[in-house]
Amino acid sequence: MIKNLVFQSDFGLVDGAVCAMHGISYNVCPNLKISDLTHDIPAFNIWEASYRLFQTVKFWPKGTVFVSVVDPGVGSSRKSIVVKLKDDKYIVTPNNGTLTHLKTSTQVEEVREIDETVNRLNGSENIHTFHGRDIYAYTGAKLASEIINFENIGKFLNIEEIVTLPVLSPKIIKKTDVKGNIDILDIRFGSLWTNIPENIFEKANLKFGDQLLVKISNSQNILYSNILIYEKAFSNVKVGNPIVYVNSLSHIAVAINQGNFATTYKIDTGINWSIEFKKIN
Amino acid sequence: MIKNLVFQSDFGLVDGAVCAMHGISYNVCPNLKISDLTHDIPAFNIWEASYRLFQTVKFWPKGTVFVSVVDPGVGSSRKSIVVKLKDDKYIVTPNNGTLTHLKTSTQVEEVREIDETVNRLNGSENIHTFHGRDIYAYTGAKLASEIINFENIGKFLNIEEIVTLPVLSPKIIKKTDVKGNIDILDIRFGSLWTNIPENIFEKANLKFGDQLLVKISNSQNILYSNILIYEKAFSNVKVGNPIVYVNSLSHIAVAINQGNFATTYKIDTGINWSIEFKKIN
Amino acid sequence: MIKNLVFQSDFGLVDGAVCAMHGISYNVCPNLKISDLTHDIPAFNIWEASYRLFQTVKFWPKGTVFVSVVDPGVGSSRKSIVVKLKDDKYIVTPNNGTLTHLKTSTQVEEVREIDETVNRLNGSENIHTFHGRDIYAYTGAKLASEIINFENIGKFLNIEEIVTLPVLSPKIIKKTDVKGNIDILDIRFGSLWTNIPENIFEKANLKFGDQLLVKISNSQNILYSNILIYEKAFSNVKVGNPIVYVNSLSHIAVAINQGNFATTYKIDTGINWSIEFKKIN
Repeated sequence: MIKNLVFQSDFGLVDGAVCAMHGISYNVCPNLKISDLTHDIPAFNIWEASYRLFQTVKFWPKGTVFVSVVDPGVGSSRKSIVVKLKDDKYIVTPNNGTLTHLKTSTQVEEVREIDETVNRLNGSENIHTFHGRDIYAYTGAKLASEIINFENIGKFLNIEEIVTLPVLSPKIIKKTDVKGNIDILDIRFGSLWTNIPENIFEKANLKFGDQLLVKISNSQNILYSNILIYEKAFSNVKVGNPIVYVNSLSHIAVAINQGNFATTYKIDTGINWSIEFKKIN
Repeated sequence: MIKNLVFQSDFGLVDGAVCAMHGISYNVCPNLKISDLTHDIPAFNIWEASYRLFQTVKFWPKGTVFVSVVDPGVGSSRKSIVVKLKDDKYIVTPNNGTLTHLKTSTQVEEVREIDETVNRLNGSENIHTFHGRDIYAYTGAKLASEIINFENIGKFLNIEEIVTLPVLSPKIIKKTDVKGNIDILDIRFGSLWTNIPENIFEKANLKFGDQLLVKISNSQNILYSNILIYEKAFSNVKVGNPIVYVNSLSHIAVAINQGNFATTYKIDTGINWSIEFKKIN
Repeated sequence: MIKNLVFQSDFGLVDGAVCAMHGISYNVCPNLKISDLTHDIPAFNIWEASYRLFQTVKFWPKGTVFVSVVDPGVGSSRKSIVVKLKDDKYIVTPNNGTLTHLKTSTQVEEVREIDETVNRLNGSENIHTFHGRDIYAYTGAKLASEIINFENIGKFLNIEEIVTLPVLSPKIIKKTDVKGNIDILDIRFGSLWTNIPENIFEKANLKFGDQLLVKISNSQNILYSNILIYEKAFSNVKVGNPIVYVNSLSHIAVAINQGNFATTYKIDTGINWSIEFKKIN
């Protein structure tokens, strides 16, 4: 049965790169069902590519094949791999950190290195700058159309060989005091998505309606410190007011109702951006 | 038979939100035919969402299901609804004004409130910030795949219960003098699309080749006043020259041939932006 | 058998124009497989539309129908045509230069003028501003779904009647000195793609590892002059360093590894932008 084939890249949609990947895929199998996650990952931003996979793969049907191409090392010795997730999804990608969030959340079941002597577009051997088309789209299309199966990808690797970027874990510092990082933005709306799952708030006994002191720091500099209410829905605060809430991945997040928190306070993301919530009373 | 499922939102395509809605839909039914209207509605801009539906639904096959998610009130008491149009299309949307143009043009046949106790993604009950995924995509996918029909959406509402934003009607002031509003822009090209249908120009006896005095006002301030020719095609005026013409929805519009009227003269849209055409001779 | 239908335009994806073209196509045939090349061709930029077709059509399956709508002359006397390529792809487009690269690379087999008395959306006869929807999408959909075949498009034209923009040919000036033009950018990454195929470098005896003097001129002004290495892969130079390489279309290109050459040095594209490579020592 034909599986979904979903593309992600930092190529943008302004030129022909994504179209070439789609075309190659339909050439492999005319009945493929092709979708796009996003092609607007900022250029070379492996972290964000990793997060967008983590954010979306769970919502797709079993068997779906994702092709993720943020590949600053194209043509270097970095390996090309396919991972099989425990919930039966596949990710085709360079081994450069784009699997950071899926690996650290222990969703990877198995990983194989792509054997480029067989899983590569005929005639592309002398092109060293577009493996997204010549190797990843081509291999993903063969896998999604079941022309090959996971065993045909290439040799087995240890999960430990999957390259990951550094991540930090959220923690309860003491009682009702929780610290984490700003993992990513809900970009259009400028909301801050932390790495703190809702259940850590529950363990720390933080409840809807609580007033929380929120501190945001970049390295050691505190850039924001204010008391916010923790609420279920944006509509529990007035338009223009800030709110702590549970986002659509069941993680703790911070927003301004119908405003843009990130641009208003110049907040960015990554492991140097920490955020702390502490109950006041 | 599987129907088309078409998404619109203000989420943008830079993160995983749209991809999650597509994934959920394919999980409901792997054979769905998914398309996107646009995801670049300006954040929280209900008026523009309403117009884009009005602009496009008529060109789609009978049975097509549109899911429109511009939802600043997500998690509040605003209702979730599905309307059936007279030409047999369906729109799944929050009841917040996104149906303004379809309702005021009397295209709505029937409306039902979504019963969220059954038409909601399993396990999403505690998530209050992404009804686009958990309710609208999920319900739209079930409707488009005929797993449910319109009667299974939930209880019947009166058409009068559909929330609408204020609109104004175009009118003939006297003889060959017509007044209306700038409803929306043809964004890429900066053309002004008015709410004046071509047949009002016909009633006012305005004809191709006529010279028209065009006045554009924001509230009471006149921001543009000039004599323009009313012509069939852009090519009837020189490159760089302004023109009054009939747009692709058979409404009166104003453009600069291969230029951008809206940015050149700083014109915006809405009910405070009025435009008047008067024949001179 | 249903063929792929691929759209390109300068309409952007922020409004309903592309959605209307897709809807019309599904109305012609509900089983169509619709894709998008790009809709972000800069407004009225026929050259770039031509290049994006040249860049991508070869990667699609035989029978694929492309609809390309960059149409500043909509409603004028410019003709509407369909070309059949030698490798059995079809392009539906205004005859205004969007076939420049495909024609000059001798890929066109046959061309016909669209008979708009039959190949036009019913009821659109009085609309003169959106042939993308009313003629091109409609005709493309009929062709891709085999409701009509190429002979039903309209009367045969001579290939010489295809309008082309001026192009220049790359040449070996002497020995290891090659001159060409900057045809286009790999936009996201700011790399310069020249019109010089790899085999001209081979004829000029330029080899990976060679040091090349690279001069870039706009008309007669030299804007860049530096010695760069010609290498296989970006990773052969340090991050931030420039490189001459072979791009994914097997043409010579210039980039900064993980940087943006075009914005760094303010380089643009077209026949006035020439680039010369000369081996040193």
